[in-house]
Amino acid sequence: MNTVSRLPADLTTALAAHFGDRFTINPGVCAHHGKDESSLPAAPPEGVVFALTTEEVSAIVTLCHAHRVPVIAYGAGTSLEGHLHAVKGGVCIDLSGMNRVLSVRPEDLDASVEPGVTRKALNAALHGSGLFFPIDPGADASIGGMAATRASGTNAVRYGTMRESVLAMTVVLADGRIIQTGTRAKKSAAGYDLTRLFVGAEGTLGIITELTVRLHPLPEAIAAATCAFPSIAAAVTTVIQAIQLGIPVARIELLDALSITAINRYSKTTLREAPTLFFELHGSPAGVAEQTQAIQELVSEHGGMDFAWADRPEERSRLWQARHDAYYACLGLCPGARSLTTDVCVPISRLAECIAASLDDLARTGLVAPLLGHVGDGNFHMLLLVNPEDAAALGQAREFAQRLAERAIAMDGTCTGEHGIGLGKRKYMVMEHGAAALTAMRAIKQALDPHNLMNPGKILPD
Amino acid sequence: MNTVSRLPADLTTALAAHFGDRFTINPGVCAHHGKDESSLPAAPPEGVVFALTTEEVSAIVTLCHAHRVPVIAYGAGTSLEGHLHAVKGGVCIDLSGMNRVLSVRPEDLDASVEPGVTRKALNAALHGSGLFFPIDPGADASIGGMAATRASGTNAVRYGTMRESVLAMTVVLADGRIIQTGTRAKKSAAGYDLTRLFVGAEGTLGIITELTVRLHPLPEAIAAATCAFPSIAAAVTTVIQAIQLGIPVARIELLDALSITAINRYSKTTLREAPTLFFELHGSPAGVAEQTQAIQELVSEHGGMDFAWADRPEERSRLWQARHDAYYACLGLCPGARSLTTDVCVPISRLAECIAASLDDLARTGLVAPLLGHVGDGNFHMLLLVNPEDAAALGQAREFAQRLAERAIAMDGTCTGEHGIGLGKRKYMVMEHGAAALTAMRAIKQALDPHNLMNPGKILPD
Repeated sequence: MNTVSRLPADLTTALAAHFGDRFTINPGVCAHHGKDESSLPAAPPEGVVFALTTEEVSAIVTLCHAHRVPVIAYGAGTSLEGHLHAVKGGVCIDLSGMNRVLSVRPEDLDASVEPGVTRKALNAALHGSGLFFPIDPGADASIGGMAATRASGTNAVRYGTMRESVLAMTVVLADGRIIQTGTRAKKSAAGYDLTRLFVGAEGTLGIITELTVRLHPLPEAIAAATCAFPSIAAAVTTVIQAIQLGIPVARIELLDALSITAINRYSKTTLREAPTLFFELHGSPAGVAEQTQAIQELVSEHGGMDFAWADRPEERSRLWQARHDAYYACLGLCPGARSLTTDVCVPISRLAECIAASLDDLARTGLVAPLLGHVGDGNFHMLLLVNPEDAAALGQAREFAQRLAERAIAMDGTCTGEHGIGLGKRKYMVMEHGAAALTAMRAIKQALDPHNLMNPGKILPD
Repeated sequence: MNTVSRLPADLTTALAAHFGDRFTINPGVCAHHGKDESSLPAAPPEGVVFALTTEEVSAIVTLCHAHRVPVIAYGAGTSLEGHLHAVKGGVCIDLSGMNRVLSVRPEDLDASVEPGVTRKALNAALHGSGLFFPIDPGADASIGGMAATRASGTNAVRYGTMRESVLAMTVVLADGRIIQTGTRAKKSAAGYDLTRLFVGAEGTLGIITELTVRLHPLPEAIAAATCAFPSIAAAVTTVIQAIQLGIPVARIELLDALSITAINRYSKTTLREAPTLFFELHGSPAGVAEQTQAIQELVSEHGGMDFAWADRPEERSRLWQARHDAYYACLGLCPGARSLTTDVCVPISRLAECIAASLDDLARTGLVAPLLGHVGDGNFHMLLLVNPEDAAALGQAREFAQRLAERAIAMDGTCTGEHGIGLGKRKYMVMEHGAAALTAMRAIKQALDPHNLMNPGKILPD
């Protein structure tokens, strides 16, 4: 891996002078920074800088800009769509050392953090404050990365996604300039919504170096439950009705029988191996009791079995840990396999139809793909388990994923509810947005990054 | 008013040929379209086209683009910041005839509408569906205009603003191209968030010709109340604590004693002329009972008086009608006066301080300015009542408004919570966003509207 030669010597000299041993071209370090948790082949950067401040990020970007060298921000490495792959070479800026919680303001229900703070670290820092940060994509992702990919996860059905959670940011632009977006005011009508433009831009318009995020009061009461169903259709119908009735569930997750099998093996649980919903309800004691009753009525109407509450915090943690481990548990179903993970999201009225058509399609392929997801938002994943060396299976999985994305888009949905476009889903951008909207996106990219240096090769098709 | 001569003859000929008597250069019609509800002097467009379809808007914009003539979209004319003023001349596109509710999908809690549908018309169309559209800026604004100005209002504390309410849009760009933004999926991580970019862009990046908005289930139970307080500070402290406790109030509005006086005169009510909070609580019967108790405890802790529930729908309507009429009621305090209306929004922890400092400041000026606002969001208005011909008073009011905006920005807030920048608040853009962020906004404007034809002279300082 001859990564040394491709960076201009002046640049490496300047970076080494400025950052000492926090700048490296070590192939092992570069290799580690050129991959994520997806099944995509690695594409290492040519150098890595471990930045500690906004000014340092600005200095790196300014230097790289002068040399027309790409820059890619790195947080926790938990991306699933190749966001970190240095497909055009360049310098990776590792932000994991920017991991300070800068301030927590309980009175305003907000906190300011550096981008390398992970969601678990933020919640640990909030311990005792009576507040929590609800966005939970499963992995212990960095908050900067979560903003960059517009992440969401299990709690989004009630608390929204990163789109709703970020109030303000500091962003380093392509030429090294530092800007502030937004304020700590809860709402504003003052000009273009730069915050929402950088949230979900996957580092292609700028690098987020500080974020102010909304917090929520810890609910007085929490109830969690699992319930097995005779069919996926019965489980999905339960979800759809819960949403349509306006029951303010905090989490409502579907796992198919195969996912449950995987979880039982991995997490040593003994759940019935049938389509299962995981619920969590937040509120006052009376509110949770009311939601509980409404959910129980729906569940029994649709043939739910083994309805089991987990009232104690330890039980709840075990349950959600099992849910969070589902990705790794599913990988364990086919040793040596990696997952090509789909991420469609459709209007809730189309969810049952989309899942049924996709399962029919899957059955015709012979592929193995556990299904799970944040069905309260109409978002579900199929983990297409394939051996990366089995080209035929990989091709079949890609074709399946393409049909699924096309199906969701045809149902007024999106090819990605929460993982982002990255490398692999660029081919759906025209289909989902139309050529004219894509031209508008390209114009914005060109305006803010005329030399295409910010995480090039992502989001926009070549 | 010689508006005829300034539009190129080829353009007027083409518009007349295409639109017949739906295109006019009649001075009266032009004058009507060159003003809003602000105190700014009118600036009529040189022609008005009454458009009925997206394709017609595209045709008008294409023609104007070819002739480098500005275009300004017009909805209900209820703007407060000069958004409709044709300060660079050009053609006004009146969208009020695009007033069809295109579809309501109760199962997905969304509706698609043309931009001229007003919020009241949408709620009328939803009658019997069990759903409602909560965003309520007071005036019966058009939904297109509300999106363009990122409007919010009384319900935003619980249901969010137009930022959170728009799922997808059709937008006509500066050269006439038609794009779709977003999908009906509840969330998406697919590329740049064009929807959020056009929401709040005040027609300076494109013209919104269709919107899909979120709806909410009508609450099972609603309770409304008013409560007078011994001081503004006591009322504001009550609000701050309600928010910090996470009580999910649907509306929590402050009116100072002078506003109540104005309302009593205008709406023939007999409210105690003291600082007053208007509350509305939404939820299940048990949930509302719980919220009610929590609010009552807070209110009595802070010396609340005359706590009065309005349980019957007619009483509630009367109450909120009085609140909505407050703007007109306050104008009635000084016959002949217009209002220079401020719109700052600050973090809730700074709200009491910001209001106190502003009232102190006001007392030193001798200006008359009732204060009211959506204090649950940290947003309040002062209606500076001045005779537009009294240049000294007008100057004093402008200086006061500037100090108030500066105070809010210094408190991590914004100069405009919901009215938008328009003409009058452009001078605060650098102070609020910084020069570098403003440069990024200009780059986006330049990328999408290189000839500066879309509502020119708004948002961005010259």
